[in-house]
Amino acid sequence: ASNRNLLVLPGDGIGPEVMNEVRKIIAWMGKKRAVGFDITEDLVGGAALDKHGVPLSDDAMKTALEADAVLFGSVGGPKWDTADFSKKPERGLLRLRKEMDLFANLRPAKVFDALVDASSLKPEIVKGLDIMIIRELTSGVYFGEPRGRHVNAAGEVEAFDTQRYTAPEIRRVCAVAFELARKRKNKVLSSEKANVMHTGVLWREEATKLHKEKYSDVKLEHMYADALAMQLLRAPKEFDVIVTDNLFGDILSDEASMLTGSLGLLPSASLGAPDATGRRKALYEPIHGSAPDIAGKGLANPIAQTLSYAMMLRYSFDLGKDADMVETAVENVLKAGYRTGDLLVGNTDGVKKVGTQEMGDAIVKEL
Amino acid sequence: ASNRNLLVLPGDGIGPEVMNEVRKIIAWMGKKRAVGFDITEDLVGGAALDKHGVPLSDDAMKTALEADAVLFGSVGGPKWDTADFSKKPERGLLRLRKEMDLFANLRPAKVFDALVDASSLKPEIVKGLDIMIIRELTSGVYFGEPRGRHVNAAGEVEAFDTQRYTAPEIRRVCAVAFELARKRKNKVLSSEKANVMHTGVLWREEATKLHKEKYSDVKLEHMYADALAMQLLRAPKEFDVIVTDNLFGDILSDEASMLTGSLGLLPSASLGAPDATGRRKALYEPIHGSAPDIAGKGLANPIAQTLSYAMMLRYSFDLGKDADMVETAVENVLKAGYRTGDLLVGNTDGVKKVGTQEMGDAIVKEL
Ligand SMILES: CC(C)[C@H](C(=O)O)[C@@H](O)C(=O)O
Ligand SMILES: CC(C)[C@H](C(=O)O)[C@@H](O)C(=O)O
Repeated sequence: ASNRNLLVLPGDGIGPEVMNEVRKIIAWMGKKRAVGFDITEDLVGGAALDKHGVPLSDDAMKTALEADAVLFGSVGGPKWDTADFSKKPERGLLRLRKEMDLFANLRPAKVFDALVDASSLKPEIVKGLDIMIIRELTSGVYFGEPRGRHVNAAGEVEAFDTQRYTAPEIRRVCAVAFELARKRKNKVLSSEKANVMHTGVLWREEATKLHKEKYSDVKLEHMYADALAMQLLRAPKEFDVIVTDNLFGDILSDEASMLTGSLGLLPSASLGAPDATGRRKALYEPIHGSAPDIAGKGLANPIAQTLSYAMMLRYSFDLGKDADMVETAVENVLKAGYRTGDLLVGNTDGVKKVGTQEMGDAIVKEL
Repeated sequence: ASNRNLLVLPGDGIGPEVMNEVRKIIAWMGKKRAVGFDITEDLVGGAALDKHGVPLSDDAMKTALEADAVLFGSVGGPKWDTADFSKKPERGLLRLRKEMDLFANLRPAKVFDALVDASSLKPEIVKGLDIMIIRELTSGVYFGEPRGRHVNAAGEVEAFDTQRYTAPEIRRVCAVAFELARKRKNKVLSSEKANVMHTGVLWREEATKLHKEKYSDVKLEHMYADALAMQLLRAPKEFDVIVTDNLFGDILSDEASMLTGSLGLLPSASLGAPDATGRRKALYEPIHGSAPDIAGKGLANPIAQTLSYAMMLRYSFDLGKDADMVETAVENVLKAGYRTGDLLVGNTDGVKKVGTQEMGDAIVKEL
C-alpha cells in the first residue's frame, strides 16, 4: 500500500547476497515505520546476459524508467570477461545511467569514527573526513561519439574514444554541486585538466560563469585532476563538495573512497533532473563492485548496500528521519565492534568478526 | 671537453632556483669525476612567452632535438593563467614531448627510509616502497584530433577531445615496461578502462599479445584505472612496474608520488626510441610543478631536480656509478636530518630545517 515503486536489481557476484540483507531492513521498516514499497525485481549484468543475451532487457529498462527509484547491486565477473564490448555486463549499468539521464552521481566519502584505524592513511589525516564527490555520469568519454576501432591511413589498427561536453551538461551538474554545498560547508572544488583538454577549458569556464550568475555565496575553487589526486592524500579534510567529469570522477572517487578504509562502506546516488512534479529519476548503488572472489561465501559487507538504501529514503522519498535511523544503526553496529573481513585492518582488539548475514542481522537488531 | 650536449631549461616558478643547486652538483662532478657537459641554456613556459611570445621558441626546439639530453625545470604560474590554449606555458613542455617523440615517461615512486614518517600513509603500508610507473607520453587524449570547440546541431557550445591509440604506440611503451621489469621484480601491471573505452580494449589486447610473443617470462596483470587508484592506497608494495596511458598516467603517478611523502623528491625521465647508434632522445624533469606560491623564496626542495639529473646520468650517459653517487648523497643528507619545508610532516625531532641553497650545499658536501 504505497505509491513508492522500487525496482531492485541485485546483479552479479556479491550483489544478490548484500541485497538480501537490505531486504530484511526494508521489511523491518515496512512493519515498524510504515515505510513500504511496491517492489519489482529484475536481472542486470551477467545474470541478464545469461538469461536474455543482453546485459539489460528492454523490459527491465522500461520498468526502471517507470520506477520511483532503482536499488542496484553490482555487475560483472570473470565468466563474462570475454563478452563483446556491447555485451559486457557493465553496459547494463551504463544503459540505465544514460536512458534514465542520471547525470549527477553523488559519492560521499565519510570516515566513521569507529573505523579510523581501518584506513591506510594516518588517523590525523582522515579522522572526521566528510566529503561529497559529484561525478557527471551521462556524458564525457563514457558516451561520446565517434568511438570504436579502424585501420588508419598508415595501415595500423587504431582505437579511439571521444570526450564531449556541452555547456548545459556542465552547468546542470555544477548546479547540483552548488546546491549541495549550500547545505554543507558551502565550498565547491571543480576539477578538470584545463591545461591540456578543451573539455576542461569549457568545464572551468561554465563552472565559473554559473557561480557568478547564481551561486556567488558559495566558495568555488578549481584544481587540475592530477593535483587533486595528490591533495586528496595530503589534506582531504580541506574539501567539502568536489565536482568533476565522468572519467576523472570514476578514478578520483575510488581513490577518495579508500580514505575511509573500505569500499564495503560506501553508497552512492545517481540522480536525474526534477520533472514538473519535482520527482527525479534515481538509482542507488554501492561504490564497490561485484567482488567475484568472495561472492557466494557469505563474507561480503552489506553496509554499502544498506547505506545506498538510506540515501534512497533521503533523496527519493524525502524520508530523512528514516534515513538517519538506518545510518545511526550502521554507526552503532560498527561502534559495537562488528566487522566483516574487509574492515579487519590495523588494531582488531575487541572486534567481532562477522559474515554478511550476521552484519545484516546486527543492523536490524540495532534498529 | 665532452660530446655530452646538455640543454638546460629551468622554466618558471621554482624551476630556476632548484636548477641552480643542480648546477653546483654538475660543477662538482665535472671537477672531481670528469663528468663534464657542454651546456646550453634556454627559456621555456611563461619565461619564453614573455620574451618570444610563444612557450617554446623554434630555436630552443631545434637545440633540444640536437641535444643528447634535456634537463627541464617546471613551467606555469598565475601570470599566464589567462593565456590562450595554444599559448599556455604547458604547451612548451608538450611540444618538447611530442616533437622529441618522448613516448615513455618513467616515474619512480620510492620511499626513503629516513622519510617514511613524511607520508600521509601508515608506515607499514609504504616502508620500502619502490615502484616504477611508465606513462605513455606522446599520444592519447593529450594530442588526439579532432579537438576543440564548436556550436553543435542543438545550438549549444560543445567542447571535445579525442583519445587515440594505435597498436604500435601501445606496444612500444609496453615493451619499455617489460624490459624494465626484467631488471626489477619481473612484474608488470597494465592499466586502462577496457570496460568502458575502446582505446582501453585495444591497450589490453596489445599488452597481452606482446607479452605472449616476447615477454612471457615477465608476470603480466591488468587492472582498471579506478581499481588501481584504490590498490595504490591499500597495498602499493604489491606493484613493481605499472604501465598506462597518458591521462591515467598523469593522475595515477601523481597519486603514487604522494605515497612517498613529498613531490619535492621525485624525478622523472622521458625517453624516445633508440636510433641506429643506440642513442635515445631524453628529457629529465621533476614531478613537481612550478609552485608559484613559494617561488623565489629559497624554500623549494632541490632534490627532485637533483635526482632527475641522476636519472640522466644513468639513462642517457650510462654513468650508473655516478648516478648512484648522487642518489646515495641525497639519501645520506636525508638520513642526517636535513629537511626542506615540504618534508616537515609528522615527527620532526632531530631534523634540521633548511632552505633550497643549504640543501644543495649539503648534497655537494656529502658528495
Ligand atoms: C562498472 C563501471 C562501468 C563503472 C564505471 O566505470 O563508471 C564503475 O567503475 C563505477 O564507478 O560505477
Ligand atoms: C604540465 C602538464 C601539462 C603536465 C601533464 O599534464 O602532463 C604535468 O601535469 C605532468 O604530469 O607532467
